[in-house]
Amino acid sequence: MSNTHPLPLTAVIREVGLRDGLQSIAKILPTEHKKEWIRDAFAAGQREIEVGSFVPARLLPQLADTADLLAFAKTLPGLFVSVLVPNMKGAERAIAEGADLMIVPLSASHEHSLANLRKTPDEVISEVARIVAARDAARSSALVEGGVGTAFGCTIQGEVKESEVLRCLQGLLDAGVDRVSMADTVGYADPAAVSRLFEKALKIAGDKFWCGHFHDTRGLALANCYAALEVGVKRFDASLAGIGGCPHAPGASGNASTEDLAFMLASMGVDTGIDVTKLLTLRAKVANWLKGEPTHGAMWRAGLPKNFISGQRSVNPQDVSA
Amino acid sequence: MSNTHPLPLTAVIREVGLRDGLQSIAKILPTEHKKEWIRDAFAAGQREIEVGSFVPARLLPQLADTADLLAFAKTLPGLFVSVLVPNMKGAERAIAEGADLMIVPLSASHEHSLANLRKTPDEVISEVARIVAARDAARSSALVEGGVGTAFGCTIQGEVKESEVLRCLQGLLDAGVDRVSMADTVGYADPAAVSRLFEKALKIAGDKFWCGHFHDTRGLALANCYAALEVGVKRFDASLAGIGGCPHAPGASGNASTEDLAFMLASMGVDTGIDVTKLLTLRAKVANWLKGEPTHGAMWRAGLPKNFISGQRSVNPQDVSA
Repeated sequence: MSNTHPLPLTAVIREVGLRDGLQSIAKILPTEHKKEWIRDAFAAGQREIEVGSFVPARLLPQLADTADLLAFAKTLPGLFVSVLVPNMKGAERAIAEGADLMIVPLSASHEHSLANLRKTPDEVISEVARIVAARDAARSSALVEGGVGTAFGCTIQGEVKESEVLRCLQGLLDAGVDRVSMADTVGYADPAAVSRLFEKALKIAGDKFWCGHFHDTRGLALANCYAALEVGVKRFDASLAGIGGCPHAPGASGNASTEDLAFMLASMGVDTGIDVTKLLTLRAKVANWLKGEPTHGAMWRAGLPKNFISGQRSVNPQDVSA
Repeated sequence: MSNTHPLPLTAVIREVGLRDGLQSIAKILPTEHKKEWIRDAFAAGQREIEVGSFVPARLLPQLADTADLLAFAKTLPGLFVSVLVPNMKGAERAIAEGADLMIVPLSASHEHSLANLRKTPDEVISEVARIVAARDAARSSALVEGGVGTAFGCTIQGEVKESEVLRCLQGLLDAGVDRVSMADTVGYADPAAVSRLFEKALKIAGDKFWCGHFHDTRGLALANCYAALEVGVKRFDASLAGIGGCPHAPGASGNASTEDLAFMLASMGVDTGIDVTKLLTLRAKVANWLKGEPTHGAMWRAGLPKNFISGQRSVNPQDVSA
């Protein structure tokens, strides 16, 4: 159906549990626990972490310590630290606090955009242009990523036209973003749809197409990651223990779980630099902190297969004679 | 990596919940409930059902009513009814009772084969040859399917060599089976491994390669189905509510869930003839009968997306201009 590529030798899992995960959980995790999470994730090999969101603390008290976490994360050598910024105010803070990357969400669904961001998609694109200008004026090295959400449909509006998704993507690029990403915010995607849409997005954005973000609402997050990988996407958002959701998208529960995705990639010989065993230890710790909240995923229960050799491409198609 | 095909327009989900599912559950479902399950699955559009297993009732009392269910299922017009038969004794019963298809399991893992079937793989192949001869001698129209299990590894032995898996597949074909299938009995497969192995299996078996059977132990069943679909597999085993496992393969819990797979396929425009809404109603009924037993899957909780149109290929890649 699509032009599938050989699987890449490496891929990146960006941890978004501390932002997308924790924002959907009422319980407020103490800052010291979050720092331990970041430290252990780094020790397990994760090199890109979204530590929080610069939104008013009264809206998301769970993420009120984002500046503190950003400062801590920046002390870990080689960790690339991102934050979500919904608007210029958030971007100003991210620039001032020295984030490596600001992720600005855009919802391709007009109705979801109004409900979630109180702006139309085009108003978000204009804001992104102002954020890029402010970043440049501040001579900041922070990158700007525009993330197109509800790319496969929306719980409020239903269908979201592909043409509108790609128009938003182009709009973000025209506004000067360094990177674009695409999200199945509410778990409506399927592998064929991912293959189709991401292939087009990659044609438009080239190397600026950065990351796929999938929710496991209907059990398809990993299948969707695989489909994206096949068309050339090499970076995925995921949440430890599969926590996450969107407060304005009912039913949108659970990001792709970091530990399951890390296993799938390692098992396929796609190196993420992650030690799955260490990640499972951290997963147990975080699940314990979040006791009573819904957590997800399969690897924590099943453990590694007996024939699993981490980080090795166990069988290379070229090496094997049938 | 592999030679992926266009996705097929149709695929078949073979229901194995009544056999693979129920055999791993201690609770014995009353025959009347099982008949209701078969009737409702048929009404929801399922046309292939494995109704049980001809094994001694003292070994699997859960499946003691297989002959009764087979007779009932045969009254539904157009339903293709299969049973599992572990040996000649089971096959003789299946032939006598008029099954459409006998599935004979073989485990490519020598150790799993001894633990589960008390025979080596080669002894199973010899038994299959005798079963085919007995079927021919009885002038029965029952088809014989050889299923190669533990095709991606084994919880007892660990690694199972690809060459051994393919040797067993060839052995079954040489023994005269009408069909072969391949199973990730313990949930060790990943999409790349499926793509690689199934492509080779299809080359060997051609049109006789019949069915992929995946367990969701590590959350990859649907991703693996997608990978198999891409290389040309058009039939999948699945269990309603994802029930299932293997008593001799610890940790092997949960088949691909019928309702989630049916949704994935329908969403991609691959017609299975299944009405997902009706299937979800049946799923709720069966889960209620099995209250207290572990059930799986995501669709029962999430429901259908707002933009879902069953049985329609919502966006055809050729029709859409970016």
